[in-house]
Amino acid sequence: MSFLLLPFDLLGTFVFALSGGTLAVRYRLDLFGVLVLSCAAAVAGGMARDVLIGATPPAALADWRYLVAAMLAGILTFHRHQTIERLRNPVQLFDAAGLALFAVLGTGKALDYGLSPFAATLLGVLSGIGGGVARDVLVARTPVVLQAELYAVAALAGGGVVALAEVFALPREPAMAVGAAACFGLRYMAIRHGWHLPSAHLPEDRG
Amino acid sequence: MSFLLLPFDLLGTFVFALSGGTLAVRYRLDLFGVLVLSCAAAVAGGMARDVLIGATPPAALADWRYLVAAMLAGILTFHRHQTIERLRNPVQLFDAAGLALFAVLGTGKALDYGLSPFAATLLGVLSGIGGGVARDVLVARTPVVLQAELYAVAALAGGGVVALAEVFALPREPAMAVGAAACFGLRYMAIRHGWHLPSAHLPEDRG
Amino acid sequence: MSFLLLPFDLLGTFVFALSGGTLAVRYRLDLFGVLVLSCAAAVAGGMARDVLIGATPPAALADWRYLVAAMLAGILTFHRHQTIERLRNPVQLFDAAGLALFAVLGTGKALDYGLSPFAATLLGVLSGIGGGVARDVLVARTPVVLQAELYAVAALAGGGVVALAEVFALPREPAMAVGAAACFGLRYMAIRHGWHLPSAHLPEDRG
Repeated sequence: MSFLLLPFDLLGTFVFALSGGTLAVRYRLDLFGVLVLSCAAAVAGGMARDVLIGATPPAALADWRYLVAAMLAGILTFHRHQTIERLRNPVQLFDAAGLALFAVLGTGKALDYGLSPFAATLLGVLSGIGGGVARDVLVARTPVVLQAELYAVAALAGGGVVALAEVFALPREPAMAVGAAACFGLRYMAIRHGWHLPSAHLPEDRG
Repeated sequence: MSFLLLPFDLLGTFVFALSGGTLAVRYRLDLFGVLVLSCAAAVAGGMARDVLIGATPPAALADWRYLVAAMLAGILTFHRHQTIERLRNPVQLFDAAGLALFAVLGTGKALDYGLSPFAATLLGVLSGIGGGVARDVLVARTPVVLQAELYAVAALAGGGVVALAEVFALPREPAMAVGAAACFGLRYMAIRHGWHLPSAHLPEDRG
Repeated sequence: MSFLLLPFDLLGTFVFALSGGTLAVRYRLDLFGVLVLSCAAAVAGGMARDVLIGATPPAALADWRYLVAAMLAGILTFHRHQTIERLRNPVQLFDAAGLALFAVLGTGKALDYGLSPFAATLLGVLSGIGGGVARDVLVARTPVVLQAELYAVAALAGGGVVALAEVFALPREPAMAVGAAACFGLRYMAIRHGWHLPSAHLPEDRG
């Protein structure tokens, strides 16, 4: 299983890193800043999850391929950021795929470490959105993953399917496939149709 | 002891989460963003403490009631934020109570994990103010707990009493009661009378 | 070895804390805010490293001298910030020395905990720049260590020498001396001559 997943996992890492590199270029950071934001966007979510469940050193430090994939994405962004900005639509699709994968894998790993299905679902969400949060905090802006179209909700759906399968003692692998499909599908439809969660009504909105 | 404390601990979690939800509504985050900021404000301090002392998974993940309390507060804030804004004064009192509780419980837990009284006091402060720091960093503003009237100082007083009792081999429970009262009282008086710490004099202040 | 290093380690902690205190004064935080930013700048990098490699509680909590050194620097900054601003040049030199020390010590500690030379180098960089990142995130600005003249690159060079020595089974101590010298020298020359990494070319730069 993990043998089959590794290419997808590295691809998800690579695409998340593109988002970090692109933001760093827009904020005019130098080459090193681009690499740091690429790595932060790619691995911060998984690192936070691993630290919280006590799985140290985190996978992203124990296996060099993750950070190398992130750095390659950073270097590519640095030299070809205009091309990558132009490819925004395909990149968003890969990003949705990475989100789906990170959410179900993160939930599964937390379950393996003995956390409850409820906590594991939240750790799956953290795995999926943590990198985007770290990326945006590093340039001092409110994380877009807290605002974008059903971004975190899609991660919640993906992780939730895996956790529910655990509750009902159903096999893990098909649940991960269903969860990933649910997450990807929800995010895809949200991007395509502009679906989003409601915001609270503030008094000044009425005027 | 912990049986008696749990309702207070959950109440403190709930009130801290209200502060996160209120901020998220003001920054116009969507429902999910409100939930994330509620949870961050409620549990980030305790999570950081647990990670630093090696108590993984953190209590807020091991016991589902904390995050459920935080989410309920988030949902309530989302639908009733104007009511909660109007209740600012009572909420500030509950917040002071939550701060007092988190500071003394945090210090006690760090002592139980073998940290020195000095380090345990600082971890008590972290337990008390960490949620407010995470909440504010997530919307990219300087944490108000570093600026508000004797906020962190009150936490320091509460944790310090517990740590001093440890140094002098006095019983823990009365020290926690005294520490919590000191923290709450100091914060209450600071809110009421506008007490605050001095800021450094800057040259342009003179002009 | 560690006996000889301790004074330097505490001096590095002290100087890093000066940078945090100075920033806090500029942002008009109160005395407690100055202390928090001093401590964050001084110990956040090492704490993050220790949490990631599973060395809990972190050294900065296990040995009270680090946080006391950081707090003394904070109190000094609070009362004498104009003097410290005027001493910017010598402080920058001490800061470069602290960076060199933290980078090589951080890499060495990660190697001792069984991490690969690649991961250990990155943890050395994190040890060196993590404090500066935390300090700046706390006042909601993009970390200058991601922008300043070869700051993180110097840390990378220092940690890299230590990691390479490990790869080639060369003795650790001389490698740490060489790595620290490389880091300090690179940073010194970068400050003196304004060396910096390239930024990506953005379309609007051309006009």
